[in-house]
Amino acid sequence: MSGYTKEELDGLREFYRDSLLEDTLKFWLPRGIDEEHGGYLLMRDRDGSLIDDDKSVWFQGRFSSILGNLYNHVEAREEWLSGAKAGVDFLREHCFDKDGQMFFMMTREGKPLRKRRYFFSEAFAIAAFAQYAKATDDAALAQEARDLFRRCSEYADGSRPLPAKYTGERPAKGLGVPMIFLNVAQTLCDTVGCEFAASQIDSYIAQIEDCVDDEFKCVWECTDPDGKMIDHLQERTITPGHAIEGAWFILHEAKRRGGDARLEKLGLKMLDYSWEQGWDKEFGGIIYFVDPTGKPVMEYWQDMKFWWPQNEAVIATLLAYTMTGDPKYAEWHKMIHSYAHEHFHDKEHGEWFGYLHRDGRVSTAMKGNHYKGPFHLPRMQTYCWQLLEEHLAK
Amino acid sequence: MSGYTKEELDGLREFYRDSLLEDTLKFWLPRGIDEEHGGYLLMRDRDGSLIDDDKSVWFQGRFSSILGNLYNHVEAREEWLSGAKAGVDFLREHCFDKDGQMFFMMTREGKPLRKRRYFFSEAFAIAAFAQYAKATDDAALAQEARDLFRRCSEYADGSRPLPAKYTGERPAKGLGVPMIFLNVAQTLCDTVGCEFAASQIDSYIAQIEDCVDDEFKCVWECTDPDGKMIDHLQERTITPGHAIEGAWFILHEAKRRGGDARLEKLGLKMLDYSWEQGWDKEFGGIIYFVDPTGKPVMEYWQDMKFWWPQNEAVIATLLAYTMTGDPKYAEWHKMIHSYAHEHFHDKEHGEWFGYLHRDGRVSTAMKGNHYKGPFHLPRMQTYCWQLLEEHLAK
Repeated sequence: MSGYTKEELDGLREFYRDSLLEDTLKFWLPRGIDEEHGGYLLMRDRDGSLIDDDKSVWFQGRFSSILGNLYNHVEAREEWLSGAKAGVDFLREHCFDKDGQMFFMMTREGKPLRKRRYFFSEAFAIAAFAQYAKATDDAALAQEARDLFRRCSEYADGSRPLPAKYTGERPAKGLGVPMIFLNVAQTLCDTVGCEFAASQIDSYIAQIEDCVDDEFKCVWECTDPDGKMIDHLQERTITPGHAIEGAWFILHEAKRRGGDARLEKLGLKMLDYSWEQGWDKEFGGIIYFVDPTGKPVMEYWQDMKFWWPQNEAVIATLLAYTMTGDPKYAEWHKMIHSYAHEHFHDKEHGEWFGYLHRDGRVSTAMKGNHYKGPFHLPRMQTYCWQLLEEHLAK
Repeated sequence: MSGYTKEELDGLREFYRDSLLEDTLKFWLPRGIDEEHGGYLLMRDRDGSLIDDDKSVWFQGRFSSILGNLYNHVEAREEWLSGAKAGVDFLREHCFDKDGQMFFMMTREGKPLRKRRYFFSEAFAIAAFAQYAKATDDAALAQEARDLFRRCSEYADGSRPLPAKYTGERPAKGLGVPMIFLNVAQTLCDTVGCEFAASQIDSYIAQIEDCVDDEFKCVWECTDPDGKMIDHLQERTITPGHAIEGAWFILHEAKRRGGDARLEKLGLKMLDYSWEQGWDKEFGGIIYFVDPTGKPVMEYWQDMKFWWPQNEAVIATLLAYTMTGDPKYAEWHKMIHSYAHEHFHDKEHGEWFGYLHRDGRVSTAMKGNHYKGPFHLPRMQTYCWQLLEEHLAK
C-alpha cells in the first residue's frame, strides 16, 4: 500500500468537479425546478422524465442547501442562487403545519399529504434557510433557521413532545438525531452563526460516541440509555454506511477546530469499525445492513447496495486520508471510488442508479423518489472537490 | 394442457397433509409455545433457535387461529387445543391497551412495546377467539370476538377514529381492510356465528371489486373514492400475491354460498389479472411488486420472492381448478406448486425460507420474525389438504 501521489489527487479533484458540474447538476437543472408552482420536481426516471409530481419536503430542503452551499462556497452563479430560492420559498409558503411542525410530503401545488412523527424535514429546512440567508444576507431568514434549530432541540430533548411511535417500555437512544443535528449545527455555525447550535455540538458527539461498541467493533443505530446493545432483532441491526457518514461528520468537526486529536481518533475508529463491518469482500461496495453478533438480519434486502452509503464512504476515506496521510485510507478510497463509479454511475443518462442487488445488478433504475434525489451524490462531489482544492493548495 | 388426474390429486392431498403434520407443525411445536410466560416465541432462525423473545401480537392471533382451526375442522388433538389456548390467553391478558385498541409488539413477559395506527392485530385476534370459542363452546369468548369485530367495523368506517397517517388531502380507499375483514367475517360466521359480520360480507366484496381495473388488467392496492387509479409512485404499485389472496377469499365465498356465478367470475378475474402481472416468466414464482403502467416501482426489493405470495397462489389456483375444472388452473397450480416447494422449502431444517432474491437465492434464512411465522404456510397446507379431501370425496 502506498498513498496517493499529488498527480493522482489532482486527477481526483478534476474528476469530482467535472462529475458535479457536467453530469449530476446537468441531470437536475433546470428540469428539477418547478417554474409553475415553485419548489422542485425531483421524482424522475432513469432518463429524467417525471414519474410523480409530489414533492418530498426533505428534498425541498436538501436540494436547496446543496445549491446554496455551491453559491456560497464555490462560485456565485445566478442559477444556483435562484435554484436555492425555489426550495426556500416553497418550504416557507407550504411546508409548515399550523402547529409549527413540518410536513413530509406535499402535492405539486403545495397541499400537505403526510406528516411524520419525527423532525428530519426540519433538519434539512434549517440547512437550506441558513445557506440562502448567508447568500442573500437575509437576517430574518437566518433567525428563522436558528429558531427552527431551537425547536428541533426541544423535540429531541422531549421538552416539546411529538406523538410517540413506541411505548417507552424499552427505552433507547439513537444515532440518527445527534448525527443529523451535528451536521446541521456545523452548517448553521459556518453560514449565519448560531451560539446555541455551537453549544450543542459536544453533546451530539457524546451521544454518537455512546453508540460506538468496542466489544462488537461496530456503531449501533440505537442503544439502551447506558449505551449498551439492545439484544433484539431490529436493534441489533447496524447500517455501516450511516455510521461512516457519522464518522466523517466527526472528522470534519476535528478539522473545523483546526485539529482535535480526540475527535480524529473517534472518527477514524468509527470509520475503521464500519468499513470492516460493511465492505463486501466478495462483490465490493458497502452493504446496507449487518448484524455484528452474526445473527440474521430481519430486513430481507439487507444485502443490497444503495448509492448513499457509497457516497458517504468516498467522503470519509478521502477525508481520513487527507487528515492522516495513512495509505490504508487511500487504498480504501480507491476501492470504494472505483467500485461506486463503475456500478452506480449511469453512463447513458448521467447521475447514479440508487439501488443495486448485492452482485451489482440494478434493481430499479429511477433517479429520484421519496428518498432519493440530488443530495448525497452532489454533496460528495462538492465536498471531495473542495477538500482536494484545499489539500493541494497547502 | 390437461387437468389433474384423480391419482395426481390424491398425491397432492397426501403431500399437503404430510407437509403440514410432519414438517411445518413439527418445526413450530412444541418449541413455539412459551411455557413460562404464555403465548408464543416465534422469532426463530433457520434451525429453530430463538433470535428474539419479543412477541408479535399479529402472530399470537395468527398461530392460535391456525391451531384452533385444525382442532375444529381436522382433528380434536389436545396439543392443538392447548396450543390455541396459549395465544388466546396471552392476547386477552396483555395485548389490549386501556383505550381498547390492541398493541403490535410485546415483550416476552407481556409488556407493550409498540402500538400502530391500524387494526390488523384485532383481525387476527378475532379469528383466534372465534376458533377457540367454538372449540371450547365458550359463549363469552364468542361474544368477545363479535364485539371486537364490531369495534373494527367502527375503525374502518371512521365512526371510531384512529390517529391518521395521511392528511386526507388525497382521499383513497384500500384493498387491505375489506380483504382481511372478509376473511375474518367468514371465519366468525363459520365458527361461532355472527349476524353482523354476515351482513358486512357483500360490502367488503364490493370494496374489493372497486379495486379491480379492466383497463390495466390489475387489482390496485388503493384507488381514489371513485375506484380510479391514483397516478402516483406508491399508489401505482400493486402486490399481485395480495390480490391473489383476495381472489381466493372471494372464490371461497362463492363456495360457501353453494355456488355463485358472479362471485366466481370476479374471483377468477382477479386471479387471472394478478397471475399475468405477478408470475415471473424468467425465473418462476410470484414477484412482490409491479407497476402495471410500466413505470418504475419505488421499492428497491420489488423483484424479490416472498414465501406468502407463493402460498396464496397455490391455494387460489387449486381452488379455481376444483371449482371450474379448467385445465389452465391445474397448469398454473403445477407451476407455482413446484416452483415454491423447490425454492422455498428448507430441506435441512424443515419449514420454508421467507425471502429469496428474484433468481431464487436465499436472502435471509430465518423462519420467524416480526412479519413471518406459522400462518400463510400452514394455512395453505391445511386449506389445500381439506379442499382435496372434500373434492375427492365427491
